[in-house]
Amino acid sequence: MNIRKALITAANARQRQLPLQVLIGPDGEAKSALRLLLEEAASGGVEEFCVVVCPGDEAAYAEACGPLRPRVRFALQAEPRGYGHAVLCGREFCSTEPFLHLVGDHLAVSTGAKTCARQLIDIAAAENSPVSAVQPTRENLLTSFGAVGGKLVGRDLPLYQIEAVLEKPTPTVAEQELLVPGLRAGFFLCFFGMHVLDGDIFELLIRQMAAQPDGRISLSPALHALAAQRRYLAFSVAGQRYDIGATYGLLFAQLALALAGKDRDALLTQLVELLAQRPKEAREARR
Amino acid sequence: MNIRKALITAANARQRQLPLQVLIGPDGEAKSALRLLLEEAASGGVEEFCVVVCPGDEAAYAEACGPLRPRVRFALQAEPRGYGHAVLCGREFCSTEPFLHLVGDHLAVSTGAKTCARQLIDIAAAENSPVSAVQPTRENLLTSFGAVGGKLVGRDLPLYQIEAVLEKPTPTVAEQELLVPGLRAGFFLCFFGMHVLDGDIFELLIRQMAAQPDGRISLSPALHALAAQRRYLAFSVAGQRYDIGATYGLLFAQLALALAGKDRDALLTQLVELLAQRPKEAREARR
Repeated sequence: MNIRKALITAANARQRQLPLQVLIGPDGEAKSALRLLLEEAASGGVEEFCVVVCPGDEAAYAEACGPLRPRVRFALQAEPRGYGHAVLCGREFCSTEPFLHLVGDHLAVSTGAKTCARQLIDIAAAENSPVSAVQPTRENLLTSFGAVGGKLVGRDLPLYQIEAVLEKPTPTVAEQELLVPGLRAGFFLCFFGMHVLDGDIFELLIRQMAAQPDGRISLSPALHALAAQRRYLAFSVAGQRYDIGATYGLLFAQLALALAGKDRDALLTQLVELLAQRPKEAREARR
Repeated sequence: MNIRKALITAANARQRQLPLQVLIGPDGEAKSALRLLLEEAASGGVEEFCVVVCPGDEAAYAEACGPLRPRVRFALQAEPRGYGHAVLCGREFCSTEPFLHLVGDHLAVSTGAKTCARQLIDIAAAENSPVSAVQPTRENLLTSFGAVGGKLVGRDLPLYQIEAVLEKPTPTVAEQELLVPGLRAGFFLCFFGMHVLDGDIFELLIRQMAAQPDGRISLSPALHALAAQRRYLAFSVAGQRYDIGATYGLLFAQLALALAGKDRDALLTQLVELLAQRPKEAREARR
């Protein structure tokens, strides 16, 4: 399995400014969130990129791509028909090739020697199978993510064969349907916002569209159907995902990037100085 | 002196994305940097706003204004002729009225009971005089700011009558020309990015333009000339300025806003969790 293409979904109408937000990358350079996503994909060997956007956002997003811009094309999601529909908008670009899929509102920070995209693509290539990055996630956060159930199949690796995918399950449902042997109690395998998929997912999404011609289409039911028809894996990557669309999400993504990068010491020094700045006065004044 | 108008300069071509950057305000709501600036001005009683922008940025910036949008107009700086020229682009809007001037690349976080803009406008009204917000700043940072020299005129307040204004002086020049009695050794009064000015500044800028018809026009020489012709004050506000155009500037502005706001405790908790996340491994992997 040779992965040359990446599909990034960034067509959430409530988050149109998100890909344009500027962060300092692990190399100390100021980059848009979109550029960080493209570089994450490129770190896994990806050569061609497609970004699914709301109509009208192409120009601003193109400017935010940085040096990879000539290799990026845009696909428009003309109607807000959901995340699954946004993925389907990349069908023409991906054709029948396997591709890396990243969500536009999450940034990944690796805690290992390889980037998260590189880790996932290496697993997909070795296993010759679609694979989703996952992260053991506390049950109180289940309301934010898709979650998977399955069995451990990796000997030395946290690799699972997926048997079920549920979108934002309640803890009760997750306990009944998504228990994964070997995880700590109260933890479930939730999506990381990073997948290696292939043409099969488009077929499944088209079927879903046919069944719900007017509704919003999410991705998790198609992934659930994928698990039923073929070997589909989950890999717990060494790293953390940061939802930059959440309150203070950009702040914590930036902190994590900086603490993992070359500016770690300078940042910690500034942080201590800031925390020492008479915070009590300020807090009381604002109450 | 009744201050009803604010002039915000945001026409730096290298920082076109800056006003669009989204931060969580002290009230916990996600807001663009531009909206935070408008709200800072409004907190001082300002009712009408003018933002000086690069041609082509009006639409995106208008969308970033938030609820104050109907009271905001834009003035275009057609050529990149410097900061002083950008201020001059607001002349028609301000006419002969006194106005609050904010720079678009700095955010202010008050450590007092009033916002920084409110503190400055109250002083300007009480003294019936133009006044610039300043902050005692270590000499190693002189290369980033305009700096003033003068004498203390406030009895209980850190209020100074300005005698000289220099743009980014060297420490040697600052020690010769900008010593301010009462400041700690090695500290100088540097601009905060917030001023109350009036029509006089436009006359002085026009004279400067006439003398340098093709050059870039900065603001400090006009402020220096202002100090020579009338009473012009500096007030050391209770607060901190954050240069959001600097590396990690947005990060520290966001941290300062959050630590001064209602989310302080939640933020500190998350911060400790992040710092506890095996940072050593990550750092070594990236070296």
